[in-house]
Amino acid sequence: MNIVDTYKEDFISYLKKEVTVKEPKNLYAPIHYILQIGGKRLRPILTIMTCDLFEGKPKDAYDAALAIELFHNFTLIHDDIMDSAPIRRGKQTVHEKWDVNTGILSGDAMMILASQCFNKYEPELFKKLILLFNKTALEVCEGQQLDIDFETRNNVTIAEYIRMITYKTSVLVAAAMEMGAIIANVEKSEAEKIYNFGLNLGIAFQLQDDFLDTFGDAATFGKQIGGDILENKKTFLYLKALEVCDKKDKEKLLGFYNTKINFETKTKEVTELFNRSKIAEITTKEIETYTQKAFIILETLSIPESKKEQLKNFGLSLMKRSI
Amino acid sequence: MNIVDTYKEDFISYLKKEVTVKEPKNLYAPIHYILQIGGKRLRPILTIMTCDLFEGKPKDAYDAALAIELFHNFTLIHDDIMDSAPIRRGKQTVHEKWDVNTGILSGDAMMILASQCFNKYEPELFKKLILLFNKTALEVCEGQQLDIDFETRNNVTIAEYIRMITYKTSVLVAAAMEMGAIIANVEKSEAEKIYNFGLNLGIAFQLQDDFLDTFGDAATFGKQIGGDILENKKTFLYLKALEVCDKKDKEKLLGFYNTKINFETKTKEVTELFNRSKIAEITTKEIETYTQKAFIILETLSIPESKKEQLKNFGLSLMKRSI
Repeated sequence: MNIVDTYKEDFISYLKKEVTVKEPKNLYAPIHYILQIGGKRLRPILTIMTCDLFEGKPKDAYDAALAIELFHNFTLIHDDIMDSAPIRRGKQTVHEKWDVNTGILSGDAMMILASQCFNKYEPELFKKLILLFNKTALEVCEGQQLDIDFETRNNVTIAEYIRMITYKTSVLVAAAMEMGAIIANVEKSEAEKIYNFGLNLGIAFQLQDDFLDTFGDAATFGKQIGGDILENKKTFLYLKALEVCDKKDKEKLLGFYNTKINFETKTKEVTELFNRSKIAEITTKEIETYTQKAFIILETLSIPESKKEQLKNFGLSLMKRSI
Repeated sequence: MNIVDTYKEDFISYLKKEVTVKEPKNLYAPIHYILQIGGKRLRPILTIMTCDLFEGKPKDAYDAALAIELFHNFTLIHDDIMDSAPIRRGKQTVHEKWDVNTGILSGDAMMILASQCFNKYEPELFKKLILLFNKTALEVCEGQQLDIDFETRNNVTIAEYIRMITYKTSVLVAAAMEMGAIIANVEKSEAEKIYNFGLNLGIAFQLQDDFLDTFGDAATFGKQIGGDILENKKTFLYLKALEVCDKKDKEKLLGFYNTKINFETKTKEVTELFNRSKIAEITTKEIETYTQKAFIILETLSIPESKKEQLKNFGLSLMKRSI
């Protein structure tokens, strides 16, 4: 078994041991549900891997990894309510399986449970971790707000979009990694570097998500293909297409995003338009750019080459994913 | 100006200075809104007062007081969504003024902002405060869940009801006070006593809230009189009435809570039934019982008599309130 699979398996065992259904059941069952329907466990793996990378004990990072995973899943529950999303990881979303109120309240409890995962760290370390956790959590909320604001704006730039996904997605990946470094007790400058590595990797990861939402395989993606198109999401693909396609296609695209039309027709037409403008290729190139930015930062870290290689391979595997 | 008014005024100045509307505006404006439409500021006053009581510097307690007030207001935003409540403090609720999604997300952000209020405390103190804060926050969620569960249960006992309001309301009053004691650096046994004082005061306070919801004055209460009756809430009043009224009235009351009828008729009939069973008097006596329990604990505290008197007077004033 490769090291990433080992981290993942050990983390899942820990999660199963730590997160159980307590009373009142209606509060804790949805938390248990969303955690056990799967997920890539990308963020907690990164926390444990980063701690290991810097010669910390992987086990010391389990609680921080669990905090990150719980927080991430809390955001999924609340985001799915806000998006009225029926499906998550190929299963019913929490508010669909129960109801909106259950989703709101279980989400709230989950966020507190996340923060409580740090309880075992000694006060100095505890404070460092909670400060980073709260700062990141607030940025994620700000990112979600920007995402909502963009829905009703017609002048979103690609720079603004990158800023939004940085807040909504990348800061949590970055914080997950920095926590591993903090627990391994590295110098502040090294911790900052790994944070920036995570930030760029996170942007690449989200662009990959945008890519898969349109060009992915329905059998493995876990969400509905074309979901972003259906919801008129101003993703990188859409914004880039507006930038590069000809006048006729631009008007056509704006039209598709401003009128109610049959979902299948819309997905087909928009995907074809994206293909004409080589959006898949442009997006793939952009993903590579952010991945490379991350790898350049990686080179500056004072860790053995073999450890760098491990992180690099994990980064590359993420960019080749189909889920 | 009496000391309580001074605490309140100073706290409100601090709150206004600390809580401002940042970008993205749609995230922070609702937070600013709910904080400035008023409220009794009971919990932050108790944090500051308790710190002062134990010879701590009141100013040192401002940040903890702010955390408690932010957390309390976050629960109001989310609870109002769950209850579909249109009015809070005589003004539109957040989800009415904006929408449900804004209420969910601003509430989430507000809860993180609450936790960030502790940032200035040194690590040992920071950890103590966050541990108490998170434990309390989770209990408040559990209390809210029990409240929701009770809606569809027909065998709720008064003991279960008291447990529910203890979690939903009292633990936050208790924690608000214990935080003041912790900041004043008192012994653990004294901090626990003040926590238990707050717990009993909080129960009395919530029973008073139940009382005012039916028997209060619409002009000063800030919420709709009869709201609990309208929503078939199994309050102390309702549960006690089922216990003490005659068979005919019991059937009548169960009927009112199981059929859709005109709100005015229902409020009038149920209030009359409560009056026949002397529910106002019984509730007032129960409120006094919990207030006395709190005062007995107060006597055992190692603080000057004058300080005890101050807290006692504040407690008594709460029980005489009309809002």
